[in-house]
Amino acid sequence: MTSPASLTDASTAFAELKRRLNLISDLGAAQGLMSWDQETQMPPDAARVRGLQMAGLAGLSHQLFTADETRALLEAAEREDAPGEVEADLLRVVRRDFDKATRLPTAFVEEMSRARNEAHHAWIKARTDNDFAHFAPYLQRVLDLTRQYAELSGYAEHPYDALLDDYEPGMKTAQVRRIFADLRERTLPLLRAIVAAGDATDYGVLSRPFPASAQRDFALKVAGEAFGLRPAFSRLDESAHPFQTNFSADDLRITTRFDEHYFPMSLFGTWHEAGHAMYEHGVSRELERTPLSRGASLGVHESQSRMFENLLGRSRAFWQRYFEEFAQAAPDVAAGQDAENLYRAVNRVQPSLIRVEADEVTYNFHIMLRFELELALLEGTLSVEELPSAWNARMQEYLGVTPPNDAEGVLQDIHWSSGLIGYFPTYSLGNLLSVQLLEAARREPQVAGGLERADYTPLREWLRQQVHQYGRRRTPDQLVQAATGAPLSADAYVKYLHEKYADIYQLG
Amino acid sequence: MTSPASLTDASTAFAELKRRLNLISDLGAAQGLMSWDQETQMPPDAARVRGLQMAGLAGLSHQLFTADETRALLEAAEREDAPGEVEADLLRVVRRDFDKATRLPTAFVEEMSRARNEAHHAWIKARTDNDFAHFAPYLQRVLDLTRQYAELSGYAEHPYDALLDDYEPGMKTAQVRRIFADLRERTLPLLRAIVAAGDATDYGVLSRPFPASAQRDFALKVAGEAFGLRPAFSRLDESAHPFQTNFSADDLRITTRFDEHYFPMSLFGTWHEAGHAMYEHGVSRELERTPLSRGASLGVHESQSRMFENLLGRSRAFWQRYFEEFAQAAPDVAAGQDAENLYRAVNRVQPSLIRVEADEVTYNFHIMLRFELELALLEGTLSVEELPSAWNARMQEYLGVTPPNDAEGVLQDIHWSSGLIGYFPTYSLGNLLSVQLLEAARREPQVAGGLERADYTPLREWLRQQVHQYGRRRTPDQLVQAATGAPLSADAYVKYLHEKYADIYQLG
Repeated sequence: MTSPASLTDASTAFAELKRRLNLISDLGAAQGLMSWDQETQMPPDAARVRGLQMAGLAGLSHQLFTADETRALLEAAEREDAPGEVEADLLRVVRRDFDKATRLPTAFVEEMSRARNEAHHAWIKARTDNDFAHFAPYLQRVLDLTRQYAELSGYAEHPYDALLDDYEPGMKTAQVRRIFADLRERTLPLLRAIVAAGDATDYGVLSRPFPASAQRDFALKVAGEAFGLRPAFSRLDESAHPFQTNFSADDLRITTRFDEHYFPMSLFGTWHEAGHAMYEHGVSRELERTPLSRGASLGVHESQSRMFENLLGRSRAFWQRYFEEFAQAAPDVAAGQDAENLYRAVNRVQPSLIRVEADEVTYNFHIMLRFELELALLEGTLSVEELPSAWNARMQEYLGVTPPNDAEGVLQDIHWSSGLIGYFPTYSLGNLLSVQLLEAARREPQVAGGLERADYTPLREWLRQQVHQYGRRRTPDQLVQAATGAPLSADAYVKYLHEKYADIYQLG
Repeated sequence: MTSPASLTDASTAFAELKRRLNLISDLGAAQGLMSWDQETQMPPDAARVRGLQMAGLAGLSHQLFTADETRALLEAAEREDAPGEVEADLLRVVRRDFDKATRLPTAFVEEMSRARNEAHHAWIKARTDNDFAHFAPYLQRVLDLTRQYAELSGYAEHPYDALLDDYEPGMKTAQVRRIFADLRERTLPLLRAIVAAGDATDYGVLSRPFPASAQRDFALKVAGEAFGLRPAFSRLDESAHPFQTNFSADDLRITTRFDEHYFPMSLFGTWHEAGHAMYEHGVSRELERTPLSRGASLGVHESQSRMFENLLGRSRAFWQRYFEEFAQAAPDVAAGQDAENLYRAVNRVQPSLIRVEADEVTYNFHIMLRFELELALLEGTLSVEELPSAWNARMQEYLGVTPPNDAEGVLQDIHWSSGLIGYFPTYSLGNLLSVQLLEAARREPQVAGGLERADYTPLREWLRQQVHQYGRRRTPDQLVQAATGAPLSADAYVKYLHEKYADIYQLG
């Protein structure tokens, strides 16, 4: 039994801990704003000092979080006998984050940060010059440090578990292997059948002129009307690499880029980021300014963006509903077209070299390839030197294409240069989860009815109830099990792909 | 003699103190960015949490600065026998700021912050409803706390000295009284002569249509070409109340507002803010991320903005140089006009009710009135209840106009509601200093030659050398004495007004 005195102590400690977490959250918002500003607003000469300022705030934030006072407050707060549900969830997540943050020696964190920074600059040069050899020693260094990171962080079965866990808490390497093997086995035949079937569609429509400002207006109109992203709590800017960030649940910032001769980039890009934004918008205000006020994982986050972008934005019902408005916004594109033509055009399946341009059927092969190569590098069965040829061989095996150079092959993504190893799988896990969630939501008649009319209000309400509101209170596993009644698998996604593309490509 | 060991201690302490000051500066930059973002970019629903976040960072910043560790580091660093010049200046300014910040009990600071916040909201309502009585008790509370603030802060002669010192370090009430009395005595006859002379100019030209985007382009073109404000290190946005802020010397943000039927607002407003911005841009990079990397005082700051806005932007040479470009940007305005017409139009002298719309001749009377009323309130010779009638009586005395209501009278400015008592005089001190500096600069033949051609590059270089580069290293007094060879006085300004307006109004 706990005496009243220690009860008071624990709850006082909790209140004090929460104040500290609020401040750390405020510092996080400031860093996020500095970063958003840097990508979208900042004058170029400001970059040098901005870098110092962001590093200063990051250091202060880390120092506040890993301080002895935080440890003492956390330990005292954990002595609470009967914490409230949110309180218990907060303590669990903070304990997890605190242990992760304090397991690494400061000198190691600094070395890793330096190595990543150098590798990032080497990668930019290597990609520009199409010169993998220039990047190789830097990647080797990142890889060595990543192995050390896994050892310092600890893991039960596989060092890759420690990496995965940063992006997809609780997910194990073995589980990803099983899911990906299943996915590969059941979708590679589909891809081959599509390729074999040939394609007489006229895709010229996708490159017809559509002025950037009109693209922007249409993308935002749909983001608001269909997906609920309102100007009252969000904004859209341009940036070189599209992203979503937010500084509170009512301060959502998304970015996109415009190509006046390829409108799908800005349209589907905006709706993708709108999916991320609406997740953060749906987090309970009760969790505000705490570490719980974020998405549960990158995979769960990606399930929301992919749902808006692909499952809804690339659905037949969507184009039936929005074709007329599209035609008003883009008369040059829509001339002589109808909803069905557009639906077909934006769902083209075509094996290609670049991940970020890949369609729904081929996308996951880009991810599997990266996952397999990361594992082989980490396990030491593949050397950095062998990486380009291993990449090219797998591209040929899965997609039947071979990069003409490394810039369009192994050097295309920023991730490895930034030390983001273990991150790629979350893209595919998000794809799979998007369909698994949508199928679960569809069991509600209101949601199913809405989907047929491209009215997504009931779906959004379901997502808010089942996923968004919890923030980080539930782990991805818990969320998926509770929302869909089953653990994550490839089943729903495989079924979705087969049905959608057998129809589009009239496969037998 | 100091032993080598304590020398090391002092310099180690200085380095550690500087790291702490860098972090506090980074936090300041983050707060500044949050505030700029709030005024120019932020979606409206974000306001509530943004307020909490800004308060969080402000508290953290104050806590870091006033901490016992800061005191210990400062004391240790001050033991350095032979500090470098910049080091000595930094220690002097930090000591000044630290003593000011720690002289006030935390409870008092919090009470003041609450009172100001409440008064601010009461003022908004009072101004909207034209109801001074609603504001009176809140202003009384602010005034009582301001008296306490002066006592806690300490002063030698007059409690108002303690207030002034926050905005104009080292400036004394007696000095302001003397300067203002002199100014009043020597410019009131000029104003009366101008009013008596009558004015046949057609000011309709000022309200001719000039589209906002074209105003923006022209304002920015001149800001760049004439005043040196380049997009590489600055940007211009719209906001309800124009301001300048910056997050480093190469990250300058100015704002303005546009009236398509009154172009002087955006043009002179932009150039005014450009003057503030170019001051911060000229601060030595050596002072970056320290408390020295700011302007010396509000008055010195205002001297820079007023110089660009009025002494240059409203000069005959300027309009001769830029009339053609203006005519291209604003053909509807320029039709049938010439440089001289425009020069005359933008220099209209007209006693009016609103300070921020006042011309060069009448502006300082608005300030003197406020200064005199602040003193009377603080000394207790005027009650808050009597304030509106005292305001109106002085408006009549100085400017010959009487506000039809308090919204256009005593309630027009935000300052008192925000506890900014002692701030107003810096506007006029800045006006006086702007001319005193320009006359000193003109002694350089290159500067004088440039002024005749509206080529301000030599002037800007002189300002950088004499004023900008020092940041807060020199006090306003030191700067003015070194740059102009004399202490601040009304002499130059009085001479300037007489010469300029005797010419414009053809006074005998």
